[in-house]
Amino acid sequence: MNLLLLEAADLVAADRAVVRDRRLTHIHEVHRAEAGERLRVGLLGGDMGMARLLRLTPDEAELAIELDRAPPAKLPVTLLLALPRPKMLRRVLQTVAAMGVPRLILLNSYRVEKSFWQTPFLEPQAIREQLLLGLEQARDTVLPEVVIEKRFKPFVEDRLPGLAAGTRGLLGHPGDHPPCPRALNEPVTLAIGPEGGWIPYEVEKLAAAGLQPVQLGERILRVETAVSALLARLF
Amino acid sequence: MNLLLLEAADLVAADRAVVRDRRLTHIHEVHRAEAGERLRVGLLGGDMGMARLLRLTPDEAELAIELDRAPPAKLPVTLLLALPRPKMLRRVLQTVAAMGVPRLILLNSYRVEKSFWQTPFLEPQAIREQLLLGLEQARDTVLPEVVIEKRFKPFVEDRLPGLAAGTRGLLGHPGDHPPCPRALNEPVTLAIGPEGGWIPYEVEKLAAAGLQPVQLGERILRVETAVSALLARLF
Repeated sequence: MNLLLLEAADLVAADRAVVRDRRLTHIHEVHRAEAGERLRVGLLGGDMGMARLLRLTPDEAELAIELDRAPPAKLPVTLLLALPRPKMLRRVLQTVAAMGVPRLILLNSYRVEKSFWQTPFLEPQAIREQLLLGLEQARDTVLPEVVIEKRFKPFVEDRLPGLAAGTRGLLGHPGDHPPCPRALNEPVTLAIGPEGGWIPYEVEKLAAAGLQPVQLGERILRVETAVSALLARLF
Repeated sequence: MNLLLLEAADLVAADRAVVRDRRLTHIHEVHRAEAGERLRVGLLGGDMGMARLLRLTPDEAELAIELDRAPPAKLPVTLLLALPRPKMLRRVLQTVAAMGVPRLILLNSYRVEKSFWQTPFLEPQAIREQLLLGLEQARDTVLPEVVIEKRFKPFVEDRLPGLAAGTRGLLGHPGDHPPCPRALNEPVTLAIGPEGGWIPYEVEKLAAAGLQPVQLGERILRVETAVSALLARLF
């Protein structure tokens, strides 16, 4: 946790917050902080700055806060991911939030096992928890939007062309495609497939919706690695 | 497992292998393969190709193999990592192997907790296991070399200057540094710090050994994410 994220409900005055829950545990056990110390804080959806720890008890921490700067810019990207397996999903949500992706769409694909859609990690509260961990890691305050699309065809036919319009549409896919471009200075819609890749029908549909297949070399990367590698190369 | 990795001991003839252990379990449970099917294989330290499953029993799988192409090229990089916490270490080893890093040096740093050096995940057999998972993921056959340096100062003063000589030396470090370069076409020595970063003394020592501090933006990334992001940007 490189940033203590406060929520509006934690504020007891405009410049004062009281924290309990796992954040308090973190202050005690990881920061091993004492009254008087300064911590980096941010207000969820708002600005960031520093806090002074006024009071620390086993039950709560009281902080004097001064929020004086904006969170870091997001990447100009909409990321479309075939729903990863549950354990990977949690890490990918953290990575997506940490790297500054503002919108993530979790999509079905032929190679997504049906059971993946049953995981409790897809519940809004569970998604939010992982996104918060990513924001705390990277020092950001703005939650990405996460959209769940359980039906591939209607999404890709009816909604994706509109989403991808006016952006550079890219489809990360191993094979004989042009290499993934670098250092773009324009909005991007980027799709990354499931383990085992998109099937040819899906590649066709995604291409028809405006996404051009590109590759990162011969190596097959795990979804989480592919996400950070592609984003770091694109922007 | 996108590649079934064979070892010399699995070969019963030049073009025939018998597999047991976790690879057999994988063939049964994940591939759900049957006799006659074809699988991608590679010989550890050697070439890659296809295998035909001749015989599959609960105890062993017999394969006819044809190895006809070289593994993918490695990146021209030596990666220096402050030893990550044990759970992260395992994933980082996989990522390093998957992305094609040929040499990894695990280094001490002021912010590496002493207990991290006690983990059983640092035993040669445990390191090898994670590297193999990375190779199987990415479809590579050549194990990276992993060097363990428990003493920062003698390593950085005495050995690093020689290692970094003739390479572009870079030190991934948050702060007011030049941005990390892109698409290099030269050998690189890249150092990535611990959670919390290198301390100023360490940055000075690493810089004196030839590594120039560079940054990837305001966001603080987990070690695993930083590794894949920096490598994807550099090469």
